[in-house]
Amino acid sequence: MSKSPSVSLRHAITLGGLVATLIILFLSSVFVFAQGKHQEDHSKGQLPFGPSESIPLDQPGAIAGVPVMSAKEFTAAKAIYFQRCAGCHGVLRKGATGKPLTPKLTRELGYEHLVNFITYGSPAGMPSWGTSGELNEDQIDLMARFVLQDIPTPPEFGLAQMKASWKVHVPVSERPTRKMNDWDIDNLFSVTLRDSGEIALIDGKTYEIKSIIKTGYAVHISRMSASGRYLFTTGRDAKINLIDLWMNPPATVAEIDTGIEARSVETSKFAGWEDKYAISGTYWPPQFVIMDGATLEPLKIVGTRGMVVGTQEYHPEPRVAAIVASHYRPEFVVNVKETGKVLMVDYTDLKNLKITEIEAAPFLHDGGFDATGRYFMVAANASNKIAVVDTKENKLVQLIETGPTPHPGRGANFVDKEFGPVWATSHLGDETVAIIGTDPVKHPQHAWKV
Amino acid sequence: MSKSPSVSLRHAITLGGLVATLIILFLSSVFVFAQGKHQEDHSKGQLPFGPSESIPLDQPGAIAGVPVMSAKEFTAAKAIYFQRCAGCHGVLRKGATGKPLTPKLTRELGYEHLVNFITYGSPAGMPSWGTSGELNEDQIDLMARFVLQDIPTPPEFGLAQMKASWKVHVPVSERPTRKMNDWDIDNLFSVTLRDSGEIALIDGKTYEIKSIIKTGYAVHISRMSASGRYLFTTGRDAKINLIDLWMNPPATVAEIDTGIEARSVETSKFAGWEDKYAISGTYWPPQFVIMDGATLEPLKIVGTRGMVVGTQEYHPEPRVAAIVASHYRPEFVVNVKETGKVLMVDYTDLKNLKITEIEAAPFLHDGGFDATGRYFMVAANASNKIAVVDTKENKLVQLIETGPTPHPGRGANFVDKEFGPVWATSHLGDETVAIIGTDPVKHPQHAWKV
Repeated sequence: MSKSPSVSLRHAITLGGLVATLIILFLSSVFVFAQGKHQEDHSKGQLPFGPSESIPLDQPGAIAGVPVMSAKEFTAAKAIYFQRCAGCHGVLRKGATGKPLTPKLTRELGYEHLVNFITYGSPAGMPSWGTSGELNEDQIDLMARFVLQDIPTPPEFGLAQMKASWKVHVPVSERPTRKMNDWDIDNLFSVTLRDSGEIALIDGKTYEIKSIIKTGYAVHISRMSASGRYLFTTGRDAKINLIDLWMNPPATVAEIDTGIEARSVETSKFAGWEDKYAISGTYWPPQFVIMDGATLEPLKIVGTRGMVVGTQEYHPEPRVAAIVASHYRPEFVVNVKETGKVLMVDYTDLKNLKITEIEAAPFLHDGGFDATGRYFMVAANASNKIAVVDTKENKLVQLIETGPTPHPGRGANFVDKEFGPVWATSHLGDETVAIIGTDPVKHPQHAWKV
Repeated sequence: MSKSPSVSLRHAITLGGLVATLIILFLSSVFVFAQGKHQEDHSKGQLPFGPSESIPLDQPGAIAGVPVMSAKEFTAAKAIYFQRCAGCHGVLRKGATGKPLTPKLTRELGYEHLVNFITYGSPAGMPSWGTSGELNEDQIDLMARFVLQDIPTPPEFGLAQMKASWKVHVPVSERPTRKMNDWDIDNLFSVTLRDSGEIALIDGKTYEIKSIIKTGYAVHISRMSASGRYLFTTGRDAKINLIDLWMNPPATVAEIDTGIEARSVETSKFAGWEDKYAISGTYWPPQFVIMDGATLEPLKIVGTRGMVVGTQEYHPEPRVAAIVASHYRPEFVVNVKETGKVLMVDYTDLKNLKITEIEAAPFLHDGGFDATGRYFMVAANASNKIAVVDTKENKLVQLIETGPTPHPGRGANFVDKEFGPVWATSHLGDETVAIIGTDPVKHPQHAWKV
């Protein structure tokens, strides 16, 4: 290994931050054209649900007040729903960042209201799909009728499905034993080409596009392995690519589908476990899978369905948000959105898996470490709080009230003259930046305060 | 405390074994009369499902080949299903000890086949409900039509529902500080009076019935607290009673419903944690709840839905079978039936709950400790195996092939001249008894072998 784990970790974090920024740029330019252009490439992503027997399709006995849809219309609506709506309203329409769209609620609102709402959007964050031109009138009619129907349950995705999708293009034995190219892989950016389902690898010094690699759709995270050799990407469609940067040219050596919708991928980084495992967290099904780090072979799947912090009500779709690798223990830090829990997943013994479930607050979204790497700060965006987790002691340190809908990305660490080491987050709900003291030893009076 | 924890634990185990035996005796005598007699007392138990909108009740558009049922018939059928069928076929009809009864399968079999099967039973274990007289022809017709319908989902049961059912009859401050009666509570048997929803407390020396106490329906486990002061019972209907044996006379001081169907209750027994917590495991919903040991206040609910060992497919209804308290750690040993996992639940920090999930084999049912209390042996009855779990190291030691459908209860420990300390289990599937060596230190050649 040419680099120490801590150096490559910092590198990976920088990379992640840049990718997030660039995704936004790409989004604004290509979003409008997404609809018709790439359907052929993403049939799995666009048609996540199997046929559902319980949906009234052109049949007698339809529920009063619920428009009948043909099977063809229903399939088309499901595709649009997954692409445009599921991200905020949830695959199961139970709501998340967006409101719930259960039949009980939508039928109270009624068809006309729904058409207007979809067309014009709302100040609370609903896009104006009609006036922006992103959906036409027929499509809006389709979607209004769709959300009035009963909710189809998407299929589960277990070991058999994962193994069926798993491909090792280059076995470990046929991979190079040293770097075979002249790329500066310590200064390389992975940039998401959202709608084409690709990433561009760009040299950090010359800005030259070194390569464009086919990946999952709308790559959400590009994450470097501890050694700096492997690059992992996850598409929104839960396709994971393992790219070997030592090859000439770098190429995908293994790939797998870990579900139907996903946002996170990470690799093991604790001393002695570098590059050994990878982990993918999915929005649907609500679960994560630990894979072999060199081949992506799926090893251990863990479901996240369970109780919400506080109310202790059952939630059927607790989606896996950000995942990071702990610096202090051989553990993954898995943030579960709807239940508001941080799972410390010990990867030293997958057959006797130990998980510490830390109660934080809903909905956990994204976050980052403080400068020491000990404290993980994660946004609970529905609670307007930042949860501080001690990854050494595996305990919640504090829930800090910040501002409306904190959205830190990884956040930013710097040293303030008065307050000492601090960590900063922005908010989606207003223009403020909250700055939180992170040094309980030398600056205890400011620690874990805004 | 008048007794050491280890003494009272042995006492509790003896008690448990006897209760299991006596339940069988009571079952055979009162089973036939259960149907009409006690419906008024157990409306919650007999009507576990709320109304389901997706069931075709007297409405047009019914599915071809599926008989229509009235809402009244459906309600009556649900009551019988829960009492007579759910134990083996599962509340969700996904199968367990009995076969799955999903609409796809039942509709292939058809109405006539189902009527015959329910009437005459099968050698594989289906009771002959008709020829035994336990169900009449109308009821059998009803049940055949019921299992052809879509499956109604029973309601969840979270913290709000538990708290609504929770009653503290005698607060801790009003309870005696020493034993106020002259009962020999170290030699007392708790005997289930199945259909009346009561237990009889019987003196172990004189066989005098000291008291009959109203409990949940068909108490499945009576478990003594570590101190020997409190007796916990769980009904099949998931009603937990906390009985204070120091009162004169002993009486229920707190009660709670922890779900809709249950089989297990236990209390914390590790040094320093005696009597502090209680735990109830439910068949439906698939979860367990940790409660305050003195009041039954529900503190922490944990769902068990997740992946099955081996196939790693999602299971929607992994029921909680036997629960015991570890002697080696402050942990509960929770056996999850359908997923085949043993959960070691550390109760020292409920806000940052640590669970080690040990992969064993489906379907985990019941089991007991070896003579040292370190190794827990649990039957995986669908796999014809006994799983040996090391509760000190929190690891699976061995899966041992025994005979068809092992069913040990707690099993029996004794010392064999040749093989040293051994543990024995009977089987439901044949007449053999398997004897397993349990001493890896002094008799390693026989350890974990039949």
